[in-house]
Formats: sequence, C-alpha cells, structure tokens
Amino acid sequence: MKLTQIGEFGLIKKIKEELSKFERKRVVVGIGDDAAAVEIDGEKLTLLTTDTLVENVHFQWDYASPFKVGWKSLAVNISDIAAMGGNPLYSLVSLSLPSETESFRIEDLYEGLKEIASQYRVNIVGGNIVHSPFFTITISLIGEVKRENILLRSGAREGDLIYTTGEIGSSRAGLDCLRKPDLKIDLKKREFLERKHLLPSPRLREGQILAKERVVTSAIDISDGLISDLRRITEESRVGAILWEERIPISAVSEEVAKRVGASSLEWALYGGEDYELLFTVPEDKREEIEKLGFSVYLIGKILEKEEGISLIKKRGKRISLQEKGYDHFRVHRN
Amino acid sequence: MKLTQIGEFGLIKKIKEELSKFERKRVVVGIGDDAAAVEIDGEKLTLLTTDTLVENVHFQWDYASPFKVGWKSLAVNISDIAAMGGNPLYSLVSLSLPSETESFRIEDLYEGLKEIASQYRVNIVGGNIVHSPFFTITISLIGEVKRENILLRSGAREGDLIYTTGEIGSSRAGLDCLRKPDLKIDLKKREFLERKHLLPSPRLREGQILAKERVVTSAIDISDGLISDLRRITEESRVGAILWEERIPISAVSEEVAKRVGASSLEWALYGGEDYELLFTVPEDKREEIEKLGFSVYLIGKILEKEEGISLIKKRGKRISLQEKGYDHFRVHRN
Repeated sequence: MKLTQIGEFGLIKKIKEELSKFERKRVVVGIGDDAAAVEIDGEKLTLLTTDTLVENVHFQWDYASPFKVGWKSLAVNISDIAAMGGNPLYSLVSLSLPSETESFRIEDLYEGLKEIASQYRVNIVGGNIVHSPFFTITISLIGEVKRENILLRSGAREGDLIYTTGEIGSSRAGLDCLRKPDLKIDLKKREFLERKHLLPSPRLREGQILAKERVVTSAIDISDGLISDLRRITEESRVGAILWEERIPISAVSEEVAKRVGASSLEWALYGGEDYELLFTVPEDKREEIEKLGFSVYLIGKILEKEEGISLIKKRGKRISLQEKGYDHFRVHRN
Repeated sequence: MKLTQIGEFGLIKKIKEELSKFERKRVVVGIGDDAAAVEIDGEKLTLLTTDTLVENVHFQWDYASPFKVGWKSLAVNISDIAAMGGNPLYSLVSLSLPSETESFRIEDLYEGLKEIASQYRVNIVGGNIVHSPFFTITISLIGEVKRENILLRSGAREGDLIYTTGEIGSSRAGLDCLRKPDLKIDLKKREFLERKHLLPSPRLREGQILAKERVVTSAIDISDGLISDLRRITEESRVGAILWEERIPISAVSEEVAKRVGASSLEWALYGGEDYELLFTVPEDKREEIEKLGFSVYLIGKILEKEEGISLIKKRGKRISLQEKGYDHFRVHRN
C-alpha cells in the first residue's frame, strides 16, 4: 500500500500499535498526543515533541525568508508544548542543506530561531547539519509540566464546551496572500495575514494558565485544521461534537481575501490549519471561570456523544455532517 | 560565503558563538559535544542528541534495506549518548517521505528501529511524518547521566594515553563492499564488513563502564573519522596528539578489501569514519586499570602538548603530520 492510500494518520496508528509493545514504564504519554510525556528523574513530567519543515512542501523560499522559516520551525513545536500546558526548555535543531546554500541565509535562519527562542525562553542546546539535495529543518523541543497539570486530548466529556483562543483561518488567508503578491489588498491587512502564516505566536501563556486552573478536560493546538484537530480530540475522548458556524471567529480581513479570490473563509477556518490557536474543552459549569482568565476565548461548539460524529450548525440552522478533510501530509499536498 | 567554503565545523562554530549569548542557567554542556547535557528537574543530567540520515547522501536504497536504515539511524544517536557515558531513554523519530513510498518499507524501517531500541532499551515515544521529495530520517534521543560521571571531549591532558574500543576502518571497507557487489571476496567476510557499516553496535556498555570508573579524561565516538574526531578532542582539550601506526587496530579483512580495490586500509582507518567505536583518553598511571575492565581496548597513541598538533609515527619510525581530512558534510561528499 502506498502512503497516499494509508495516509499519515493511518501510518501513525500502525506505528503506535507496533511500538506500544515496548516497555512503557516511564512513558506517561506515548505516541499520539501533541507531545510525549515521560518521567526522567524528577517530580515533573518531561515533554518531548518534534516537527519538520520541508522546502517546497511546507513553505517556499520565494515568499518565506530564512528568518521566518527559523521562527516558524520552532513556533510549531512550542505550540505543541503549549497544548500540553507545559513549559518549553531545550531545543535541538537538525538542518539538511544543499551545499550551495549561502551562509548568510543560515545566519538569518538562526536569527529567527534566536528571536523566538528568546521570547519564549527556549535554549537551543545542540543539533546537526547534513548535506542534502534540498532544505529540511527538524526541531525537537523538550519541555516540562507538572504531572497534575498536563493537558491531554483524551478527556473531553459529553456536554463540555469547545473553545479556541483566537481567530481561525487567517493563516490560510495569509498563505493565499503570500502566493498572490499581485492580489490587491491593503498593505497592513496583507502584513497582518502573512504574519499569521509565517510568524505565528504560539499560545504558551494561555496553555499554561489553562493547565494551572485545572478546568480544561482536553486540549490540542490547531495545526492541521480545526476539524482535523477536533477529530483527534473526539477520537481520543470517544465523543462527538457540534460547532456553530456563527460563533467561529473569522477575521474580517480573512473574509475580504476569501471573497477577493473566490474562496470560502469558512472552509479556510475549518480545514486551513496552521492557526496555532489552542482548541480546548471545558465542563459547562466552568464557563464563567474560563471567560475571566485574562485572555480572549471563543466558544464555538459543544461535545456530544460519540454517535453524533462531528457536525456544523450553519447560520440558518441547518446541521451538516463534517467529513474528514483536514491536512494529511500524504493525502493533500497544499503548496 | 557558500557552505562548501565555510564547512560544517565552521558553521557550527559560528552558530555556537551566536547562541552562546543565551541564558545558560540549566545548560551544563551546550553545542559542541556528542550530546547536550541539561538540568531538567532531578539529580541527573539529561542528555540530548540528534542526527539525520539522508537518502543518497548517507546511504543508498540499492544497498541499504529500510530495516538497516532504521537500525543505523538510531545507532548513531545511541553512540553519541555512549560517548557521554550516559544511558539512552527516549527517542523521537521524524520521517520525511516521498508520497509514493510503499508502506511495507516503512514498516521494515520501524522493525529495524524496534530491534535496536529493544536491544538498547530505548523507548520510541513520538515523532512526525511529513511529505518530502525524498527520504530523510532525523532521530532525537534523550538520555541521562550522573553529573559526576559525564564524559566530555575537553579533559585530555598531556601524557594521557589514547585508546579505542575496537577496530577502525572496517565500516569504510564495508561501504566499498556494498558499492561493489561484484567484488570477489569471501561471503562471510563481506557480511562482516557490511554489517560494520550498516548495523553498527554502539559501545554503550563500554561508555557506561568508562564513565562509572572515573578514569577517562575525554571521550568521543568515531563517526566522522579517527583523525577528525581526535581533532575535536585535541581542540576542546587544547592539546596535541601522536598516534602509532603499528598499534592502530585494522582488521585483516579490511586490509584484504583495501588491497583488492587499490585503496589504503590505513587511510580508511584514519579518515573513513562511521566506526562508532569510542575514542578516549586515560592518564598514563591508569593503564593497568583500563585494560582490566572486561572489554577490549586498544592503546593507539598519546596526548602531547598543543603545539605538537596531531601526527602519526609510521611503522618504520617516520613521523608525519596529519592534515584535517575527515568527513565534513559540506566539503567531502562521500557517496
């Protein structure tokens, strides 16, 4: 079977089953959450996560500077730690580079890495550089979390409310702007959206506050797309979910771009991905508590029982079932 | 400046300087040893290392099965932990794959990973899979070591003896066998050498014993080549070194292959790399102690003062200075 048929999620499931046979004494969370959580030597759990950006697959040099690629490659990992309620600590950077790469470009990439690392207080402690026909960057990030605070994907219960920490779909709108430099749109708006796509700011503080308050039943970061990532929560928690279209926070400028290019800003919000907002669930009676934590949260839906699947209530009241359509690295090739 | 000019070591030095400006509170060993060593939460130091294998750069599918690539990709990381005297614990696997990859090949790769992971008691706890024009695997490995036992590159002193844990150059001989399937050589010998190249067994137990005995002043694993890696010890320790040709352990079968293909088995030993033997230094008065630890060690040279550089005493007594010539990912492209 080709990977295009089995898909990334299928493959990860298979690998997870295979590797589950290992001794798991000190592995608290293994394959299949935002980060792994392991016991090392102390009180806290150690979080481990890794992510890769590939030239011409995840970005293109004609619109992404090395600085931005450096920033984003660490940002997506910090976002995984944020979604576990943790604190990022140490990072390893693996670069695969064509030998004709100009070294000032690598310095620019490290400037981007340094910038976000210092903002989020991450220490880059090592890595390696190898020769390769084209550019790939893999970052591994080690963090920590108090055992009792860890946010997982698996705790959502029927009746829980579904929240995000910010607007969704703007990153996908930004990608369209980046690909269409001739698209007529106000420069400030363009910059706003392009930054959403290339310089995302992971919701680390929010994740940590949610973890500390102990009111969240499940959490994930939106990387592959709202529906795709919500499906991971519903699968791990064995529940269903409903979303209300009118409550999904979509920026006016994202709507403007969508209209301009003949796309749907709702589709972008549901399936676009790379928003790096947190998506989380909270028991219904904690609603007031969660809305007074000092940062924006958007109530977008509710957890139902498993048999309900995932569906959307349209603005006019019609309920539609949402199919799997998110970003699977082997099924949809976005760029 | 192109990377081919500045070279990998040059680039790492530059990055190290740049990143050294960060807060280093809990970083005990940062960029530039076999692994980073950090404080997380407990008594022991946490070791972090990462390495990448790229198709057609580090191996070719026509001679390397997915199983062997899986094995080797984790082996090279375990070897880094061994060279720090540590214990490997958790691993993250990042795969970049062409979408037409047959999934049974990935399963075979995970069989190789599982096999070495279970032999060395490593838990594979996560990772990611992305789409890519060709195959790359990056493994990150987390381990631990008692603070007082850690083996570094920086402690060699004038007069120390230089040892390796096994024969060197066999991996390079194995690579020649793999590239030349028509080369006439006894099948058992061929298998022995090819295994040295594709299925290396990191010297983990040896590294741990050396660490526990507290007699070693510096250590590294031989990945880039004996001279290249010895140079890292001499640079970090600010010393020089002399090697005795007649003492360098070269297997008879490696010599046989070298003769057959018109190469020098000594060159292979000095510059071939990927032996994954430990190279370490010991004070002269600990010689008896080190030779009774229960595993083979080979005395191959002596640490001199810095001004002496690195040189080799040939079998007939002539002393020659050894130039930098090891494997630099951006200068020499081996495959």
